Amino acid sequence: MTDAPRFCIHLDNVSSKHPVFHMTAAAAQAALAEHPAAADRIAIRIGWDGEGLAEALPQTDMLVCARVPALDLRRHAPRLRCVHATGAGIDGMLPLDWLPDGVVFTNSSGVHAAKAQEFALMALLMLNSRLPQIMTRQHAASWHQVFTGRAADKTVLIIGFGDMGRAAGRAARQLGMRVIAATRRGAASPDADVMYSIAALDSVLSQADMVVLATPLTAATRHLLNASRIAAMRPGAGLINVARAGVIDGSALREALHRGHLSGAVIDVFEQEPLPPDSPWWSTPNLIITPHISSDDADRYIVDALGIAIRNALALLDGAPLTNVVDGDRGY
Amino acid sequence: MTDAPRFCIHLDNVSSKHPVFHMTAAAAQAALAEHPAAADRIAIRIGWDGEGLAEALPQTDMLVCARVPALDLRRHAPRLRCVHATGAGIDGMLPLDWLPDGVVFTNSSGVHAAKAQEFALMALLMLNSRLPQIMTRQHAASWHQVFTGRAADKTVLIIGFGDMGRAAGRAARQLGMRVIAATRRGAASPDADVMYSIAALDSVLSQADMVVLATPLTAATRHLLNASRIAAMRPGAGLINVARAGVIDGSALREALHRGHLSGAVIDVFEQEPLPPDSPWWSTPNLIITPHISSDDADRYIVDALGIAIRNALALLDGAPLTNVVDGDRGY
Repeated sequence: MTDAPRFCIHLDNVSSKHPVFHMTAAAAQAALAEHPAAADRIAIRIGWDGEGLAEALPQTDMLVCARVPALDLRRHAPRLRCVHATGAGIDGMLPLDWLPDGVVFTNSSGVHAAKAQEFALMALLMLNSRLPQIMTRQHAASWHQVFTGRAADKTVLIIGFGDMGRAAGRAARQLGMRVIAATRRGAASPDADVMYSIAALDSVLSQADMVVLATPLTAATRHLLNASRIAAMRPGAGLINVARAGVIDGSALREALHRGHLSGAVIDVFEQEPLPPDSPWWSTPNLIITPHISSDDADRYIVDALGIAIRNALALLDGAPLTNVVDGDRGY
Repeated sequence: MTDAPRFCIHLDNVSSKHPVFHMTAAAAQAALAEHPAAADRIAIRIGWDGEGLAEALPQTDMLVCARVPALDLRRHAPRLRCVHATGAGIDGMLPLDWLPDGVVFTNSSGVHAAKAQEFALMALLMLNSRLPQIMTRQHAASWHQVFTGRAADKTVLIIGFGDMGRAAGRAARQLGMRVIAATRRGAASPDADVMYSIAALDSVLSQADMVVLATPLTAATRHLLNASRIAAMRPGAGLINVARAGVIDGSALREALHRGHLSGAVIDVFEQEPLPPDSPWWSTPNLIITPHISSDDADRYIVDALGIAIRNALALLDGAPLTNVVDGDRGY
């Protein structure tokens, strides 16, 4: 035991978020219990909606939050070394002009992988079985048998091959599917059979029975899947979006689902959430709407996100390299 | 080449069935192509809805059909050695009083395993993610986030552990789930972690987060899942039926879904198919209705079913043991 001052982590909660995302004392205890090395070296305090932040920041070494902090960190947080985002997609916190020089920004990328793999597995199987069509028929009290072959014989194209994309790749591999991936650089990955650069997307789209969007939302990926690229997809192909709504031209997608060019879609992310009752998505046929649940494990999410923060706190104390550092220019 | 008379297989189609189930010349050719040993020894003829059956039967060694034959086989088919059913569930052809003494009755059990495994994988994941609830909400244009843990941490009980049940067991294993199975005899299986006799069902039901019905429909399994057994399931548990509608008390299940005792169900089989527009199932909440598509692979089904028939024909010619022989007393 030493009397050295502890490394102070402040957790700033957003109370309006779903309880699954609340960093409670129980979650902090569970995360600390998984990191015995942190026991005497790290102190965790918990706040809600910025309350107490002004008092806490002067002693804070790491701030864990889901939004841009309400206070000027340059003025209030002289000891601050790291800001950790509880999410993986941090497009809502860009640009990083609020981040003081020399303070590292990290995210919780990776926390979602196991749950995201299960979601991708489900969504790929639903598309292959034409569940979106079957659900549209069920709403109309209409029995309509559609028989399909096995997913095992199909090809999937995964656009974006970070944690979420690779999780989808592993899911497709579990099904015996052929996996094509497309990323900014097109560097080979063990989780894909073939890898392309996104620059080649126009010619690759027609190879796939199903397309999964798993790319971060950046200026470069906004409306990446536009009307002409949707038209380039195979007739009867299916689409999964677990990325951000902005990577698709929504009205072009709805049109393709109405026309039947695509056999179905599983969409987890929307421009406005909760999706308002008068949204045109609700009346789009052959569409399964999942309410942004593709990757957050109710049992593990916050404990695992805090685990990343704790391991990085220990790394800062020990002068070791950090994980999950965000590149503000790249946007992820 | 010999001049010995060929073994004659007659395929009697039901034209009103979905084309996926039609034994076409192309399907017969594909099945023969996979069995070169049959080339000079087996002749296949194709009929529709019993037409030409009276002319064909005197020369027929094996009849392949989906229904009880329209003609008295004792009178018309003196050479008959085997009747092969294109389905796996043969409850619709019981009792076997139409089957002449000494003629073997075989079914297509096993043909469905690969597709059934994919369906079970999808259904287990849908139940775990509360898709039935989410679909009911989507129908009402209502966004409602439900977060769940991973399927990997859950337990499934599979009732009936023949080809379909074991396929569900392998699917659950793919997800890392704990697999409990219950069968008539309760004999251990490598595809289950624990095996019970169906006699112990009442005390086993409460152990499972999800229950899969995969038992044949017999006098012993009719309404196996009755109101008291549904009540014995865990609150929030999910149910999958890929067996036959008759193994469940349907009104008790609908009531449990309305009350919310079960979190959801995926039901593939109904007393009346197609399900009529005024069926109470259509308005049952937290229910995903799949139109009897859980196990028929559009690309492989008939070719694989004919493959069993062809292999058994070769076995009969060679005096070797047959596969897929149905026990008429047991009912499967």
